[in-house]
Amino acid sequence: MSDTKIGLWLVGAWGGVATTVAVGLAALQEGLTPEFGLVSALPKFQELDLIDWDQLVIGGHEIRDLSYGQAASQLNGRSGVFSTELLDAIASRLAVFDDNVRPGTLINVGKTISSLAGRRTKSLDKERPVAAIERISTDLNEFRERHELDHVIVMNLASTEPSLDDKVGSLSWQELSKKLENARTSPLPASSIYAVAAMLSECSYVNFTPSSGSNLPVLEELALQQGVLHYGRDGKTGETLMKSVLAPMFANRNLKVLSWVGHNIFGNLDGKVLDDPVNKANKVRSKDHLLTEILGYKPQTLVSIEYIESMGDWKTAWDHIHFQGFLNTKMMLQFTWQGCDSLLAAPLVLDLVRFTEREWRQGKSGLMTHLASFFKSPMGTVVPEFGRQFQLLEAWANGVIDGKNV
Amino acid sequence: MSDTKIGLWLVGAWGGVATTVAVGLAALQEGLTPEFGLVSALPKFQELDLIDWDQLVIGGHEIRDLSYGQAASQLNGRSGVFSTELLDAIASRLAVFDDNVRPGTLINVGKTISSLAGRRTKSLDKERPVAAIERISTDLNEFRERHELDHVIVMNLASTEPSLDDKVGSLSWQELSKKLENARTSPLPASSIYAVAAMLSECSYVNFTPSSGSNLPVLEELALQQGVLHYGRDGKTGETLMKSVLAPMFANRNLKVLSWVGHNIFGNLDGKVLDDPVNKANKVRSKDHLLTEILGYKPQTLVSIEYIESMGDWKTAWDHIHFQGFLNTKMMLQFTWQGCDSLLAAPLVLDLVRFTEREWRQGKSGLMTHLASFFKSPMGTVVPEFGRQFQLLEAWANGVIDGKNV
Amino acid sequence: MSDTKIGLWLVGAWGGVATTVAVGLAALQEGLTPEFGLVSALPKFQELDLIDWDQLVIGGHEIRDLSYGQAASQLNGRSGVFSTELLDAIASRLAVFDDNVRPGTLINVGKTISSLAGRRTKSLDKERPVAAIERISTDLNEFRERHELDHVIVMNLASTEPSLDDKVGSLSWQELSKKLENARTSPLPASSIYAVAAMLSECSYVNFTPSSGSNLPVLEELALQQGVLHYGRDGKTGETLMKSVLAPMFANRNLKVLSWVGHNIFGNLDGKVLDDPVNKANKVRSKDHLLTEILGYKPQTLVSIEYIESMGDWKTAWDHIHFQGFLNTKMMLQFTWQGCDSLLAAPLVLDLVRFTEREWRQGKSGLMTHLASFFKSPMGTVVPEFGRQFQLLEAWANGVIDGKNV
Amino acid sequence: MSDTKIGLWLVGAWGGVATTVAVGLAALQEGLTPEFGLVSALPKFQELDLIDWDQLVIGGHEIRDLSYGQAASQLNGRSGVFSTELLDAIASRLAVFDDNVRPGTLINVGKTISSLAGRRTKSLDKERPVAAIERISTDLNEFRERHELDHVIVMNLASTEPSLDDKVGSLSWQELSKKLENARTSPLPASSIYAVAAMLSECSYVNFTPSSGSNLPVLEELALQQGVLHYGRDGKTGETLMKSVLAPMFANRNLKVLSWVGHNIFGNLDGKVLDDPVNKANKVRSKDHLLTEILGYKPQTLVSIEYIESMGDWKTAWDHIHFQGFLNTKMMLQFTWQGCDSLLAAPLVLDLVRFTEREWRQGKSGLMTHLASFFKSPMGTVVPEFGRQFQLLEAWANGVIDGKNV
Repeated sequence: MSDTKIGLWLVGAWGGVATTVAVGLAALQEGLTPEFGLVSALPKFQELDLIDWDQLVIGGHEIRDLSYGQAASQLNGRSGVFSTELLDAIASRLAVFDDNVRPGTLINVGKTISSLAGRRTKSLDKERPVAAIERISTDLNEFRERHELDHVIVMNLASTEPSLDDKVGSLSWQELSKKLENARTSPLPASSIYAVAAMLSECSYVNFTPSSGSNLPVLEELALQQGVLHYGRDGKTGETLMKSVLAPMFANRNLKVLSWVGHNIFGNLDGKVLDDPVNKANKVRSKDHLLTEILGYKPQTLVSIEYIESMGDWKTAWDHIHFQGFLNTKMMLQFTWQGCDSLLAAPLVLDLVRFTEREWRQGKSGLMTHLASFFKSPMGTVVPEFGRQFQLLEAWANGVIDGKNV
Repeated sequence: MSDTKIGLWLVGAWGGVATTVAVGLAALQEGLTPEFGLVSALPKFQELDLIDWDQLVIGGHEIRDLSYGQAASQLNGRSGVFSTELLDAIASRLAVFDDNVRPGTLINVGKTISSLAGRRTKSLDKERPVAAIERISTDLNEFRERHELDHVIVMNLASTEPSLDDKVGSLSWQELSKKLENARTSPLPASSIYAVAAMLSECSYVNFTPSSGSNLPVLEELALQQGVLHYGRDGKTGETLMKSVLAPMFANRNLKVLSWVGHNIFGNLDGKVLDDPVNKANKVRSKDHLLTEILGYKPQTLVSIEYIESMGDWKTAWDHIHFQGFLNTKMMLQFTWQGCDSLLAAPLVLDLVRFTEREWRQGKSGLMTHLASFFKSPMGTVVPEFGRQFQLLEAWANGVIDGKNV
Repeated sequence: MSDTKIGLWLVGAWGGVATTVAVGLAALQEGLTPEFGLVSALPKFQELDLIDWDQLVIGGHEIRDLSYGQAASQLNGRSGVFSTELLDAIASRLAVFDDNVRPGTLINVGKTISSLAGRRTKSLDKERPVAAIERISTDLNEFRERHELDHVIVMNLASTEPSLDDKVGSLSWQELSKKLENARTSPLPASSIYAVAAMLSECSYVNFTPSSGSNLPVLEELALQQGVLHYGRDGKTGETLMKSVLAPMFANRNLKVLSWVGHNIFGNLDGKVLDDPVNKANKVRSKDHLLTEILGYKPQTLVSIEYIESMGDWKTAWDHIHFQGFLNTKMMLQFTWQGCDSLLAAPLVLDLVRFTEREWRQGKSGLMTHLASFFKSPMGTVVPEFGRQFQLLEAWANGVIDGKNV
Repeated sequence: MSDTKIGLWLVGAWGGVATTVAVGLAALQEGLTPEFGLVSALPKFQELDLIDWDQLVIGGHEIRDLSYGQAASQLNGRSGVFSTELLDAIASRLAVFDDNVRPGTLINVGKTISSLAGRRTKSLDKERPVAAIERISTDLNEFRERHELDHVIVMNLASTEPSLDDKVGSLSWQELSKKLENARTSPLPASSIYAVAAMLSECSYVNFTPSSGSNLPVLEELALQQGVLHYGRDGKTGETLMKSVLAPMFANRNLKVLSWVGHNIFGNLDGKVLDDPVNKANKVRSKDHLLTEILGYKPQTLVSIEYIESMGDWKTAWDHIHFQGFLNTKMMLQFTWQGCDSLLAAPLVLDLVRFTEREWRQGKSGLMTHLASFFKSPMGTVVPEFGRQFQLLEAWANGVIDGKNV
């Protein structure tokens, strides 16, 4: 693995998660932090021969005018997660990453996200879909060439976009690309535009958000045609992770879940965007389908996500699970999860890049269902339990290792 | 299965769990309650052709003078778990079970438990070990004959006994039986005396408590020699179940558990017995080893069990888990489990009887590691995660069904 | 006090709170229950010489067709709060109360409440406001005469009605009564129609709900003119009680409350009615103003009330309080309140009747600000702290006792 | 007030609370932090004309070899409570305070505390009681003179010492001082030795810990004789503050508290010292008497304090309150308090100095019962409710202001 170089292209490059990815990667490259929170650092994955931290370079798209230094400093001010010493020690690495950030697109991101746009992005306001795709592709190609990268993996970390009426249905890629050529308004949401551009540039694409991304039949076709990998959706970091861990217990013990109430409060930018109901609907849907899949019936559920400014990046979830046991006795489980959202998500982004690169190195393309454990709504699989999803990852790793040793 | 009849012999027959087993079985036999809480009632186990509720008869040993009617009424008064209507409807069934209850033994149960003994048991105070074993065996044989039972399964549900210095070490059964013959004071705790008596009477033995039971090399030898099944220890119903479900999540996500504090409060008789430090030590040990096994390192842990009278049978556990994620960030998970202990345990006892009978029907003897998911300290296995333990049960069931269908 | 007889007239007579009032009063009259939960039973109020339980008779208005027996049995089925033995022992007393229940009015109660109406009430659907007032007055007078009551106290326990645009403003009673005479649609909500009818019949009126009731200048005028007492609004039983107890601590310690999030889940009829946003708005307002009054500034607040059917009458509130201390350090307090709503409210209703009767016995009329501690939005006072409100009650009691002893 | 200068002498000068006092005072003097958490900064106390921050100078006794810079940096490393920027900005002020710190005494502090002693203090190991008193007095006098202070207030912030058999009983000061003169082993614990020395040097003395301090009849005599003020014991910052706020609610609502369980976990030095049972007993006693005083009966209570290293200075308390309401219904309140102990305590120390100085300025001596709200076990008062205690402070302030304005 010694000379491969991989680009990690972050959509939403100066957002909370992406900034933490950049800070974390820089800290790992400097040897300034242990590898807690990184799944790929578990002993059981050591034989996979995954890429090292210094084989990774960060770039990305962003609609705001900012920098990693500023974003990290804001995040720290609100949530107290980085030490000033650390930020000082990695400042020059962050500056290098900053140079790779290009203006994003506002196509179909909704009013709330649009209102955050900075000068650089606003000037591209009238861009047609096809022009946006070309521009994004150019940025990716230029990034790959300038840094002499073997492969680029595009990771969607942008705030949740409103869900779009399906305007592309079962179109083939040929039909869609024709349609795009002439369109003034895009039949695709922003996340899918990035996915198209990524695939056309022969980059892999991973969607860490509930937005559509590559989750359309036509993009699965395109991925296979282009020989790239893709996967998603919606990183599973907190309350939903807990659900996918706890619900199997109730199912296996035949304890009937009567109701599952989950309230989430937090105060970062994602929370502000989710305060807009059209953005929130997309997110709530992604958090709610799981229980029915695991339990085999639908208990009464409630998921609320509320923007509470003082919380900063610290997401606190209170869940109340009411269940019925033997002789109809009703019992309760409550939990409170107090996690720092960006710090939970960022290491998973780095894991996904390493695992995706490993699969790419094997010459594979299309969906990566062995990554299901990382997502709230994993594509192409019907395994909803976290434990079984993780076994898919272990099985894949064993397969790769065996193949390597043949 | 139509004409098999199975005896369920409860040690601690009028205790909270056993009383709930009796009430629950009677209610199931009358068709007055659904099967929530019963693992064996899950659709995935239907093809196993497990015995029906009316194929079971209850008997047992008990040191107090009581009856199911009285015990159920006390439990209800303290914890409000049964309806008066239900207790009325099953009164005659409970009376039949009462007729099968015989005085237990006080050998090595410790001062706190001894102090609870009623007149019937006290009169047996000076009984030698070998006499106790013979008496218990006679009770079991008489029960089997009188009810024309095909097999009897002895289930230890008695309060936790103090742990005993190991006095039998690696003795063979031949050596131990010689030693027992002459002993005035028993080298075995009460739970093992019941286990010996059960095995000698060709009954299977399951230990739902942290007491020693059949967990001695010499008893494993005896079980195989007698062709009976046995398993244990310590039913996994609440906080420890949660640990075995949650800890794998931290392990798989490489989140370092810094400390795991668990406080348990409840007010039933078991709680009162555990207020005696010699009894409690045994229990705490059983709740605490798990985390190290799952995580692969030992976080700071604290397990407290406190008798709070007003709680009755409602066990409330508060757990505080402090963990370290990416970039050393410390985060917290807290949960409060509010479960009715007897109502959580009782259905598992019925499950264990059904699964044990199924294995006995196949002609097997010795340990039943596929039952690991039911226990805090499962014997003969190194799988501590609940999810994987449950997969052992599923795999066993698939094997039995496949065998049946050949 | 030996021969006074007082009528307690419940609006929403067969609802959860009112049914618990009736069950509780009957149980107290039979000597079947201790006096926990009753403020008026505290030693410090013994010298007040309050009326005894058997001096009270219950009647009321209700829009559904039901009975106390049925209502109590439903409440018990959903929430397990009464024992069957108790309900049997007081059945005949409940039947007597049932005979005093008359059909309520649907004027301005909103669609959700209207949909619950039974046959008796539906037949009065087209009733004009003035006719409703007359009918209600007749019911009250007839109740007083038939039971030879010295005084009748009307207590509003009906589900929260939608808030009405203020259509009466600063009208005098003369102007309003003229307006009412000709009106087809009522300028008053249902709760105020009951208040008017009560006052015209020389009954006192207490409003245990967030509905308008007597909280209009014109009704304060009418109360004084008629020489009756009145007070409200919105019984303070759970989460808001906690707020009025905890917020002064933060204020007195100069700890800045950054945000106070409160989520309430429960599954009784009130909850169902509050699931209608127009009804809920009224309730949330009543729960939310308090913090600003106590703290002197407005932290970010969130109050949600959600109908979760499985919870029955057990209201669970989770509150998360985020506060800033010395050197800007952010800290947290969370609480979970698990209370049975009707059981918390019912004794306060009985307290209010006893305290109101005592004031009536003194010949007073108008507002009773010494009862502020019982209400979320106490009328005519600016003391929001529970502790200080309770001191008003103590001071009043001392005054009454001193007066008596003069 | 413009030219008064007051010394704040901290016993346990480099401990967590004292270090936070020093950091906080320096930050206030520099105008770098708002006054949250400071009771004395409330608008209602503005007319008291309390001393300004820059009129205070810090000195103290300490048994370890350390400095404010080091202690603050350790505290920050473990608990993340100060910003590096702040510590840099106040470094020179902290250095000045460091110059005023002298070696403490190890007399009767117990084994656990003794084991923490540094070189400076160890060298004083054999010091006789009377020599210790003289040395401490000399330190205080020298501090006063060097800084030209008008008054010095000694504040005990040292870790909880083991409780001592009462060896001084009802001795008069004359008898005790004679006894001390010859004693090789002290009849007084360390905290009382400091109190004696303070009083002899005409300093006021406030005891923020559960140790004995000035809580002996003979020291009350001495205080009056010397014309100094004194008060204590045990600052009320977290769980006990909550108890003194919540218990009155249960009392006033006649809700019977069945059990009150409180578990405290934290990982600072105080916690480590409290891990020694002889030290812990003193603390638990101080936390537990309150409920009986407020409720008027003794519910089952449990208070545990556990040292969990990972928690650092963040004390988390889980309290479970089980109570019985109307018709015997059992309900629950649980709370989790997540507070940073030193940050909660430090501002109260500064408040106590300001309020004590104000009383000293009035020429008073003896106990200061108006400071009851600051303490778990306030001396000389029987008012246990926080609300009423706070009203004592308000009444005192009003009295002082009125006196001033006469």
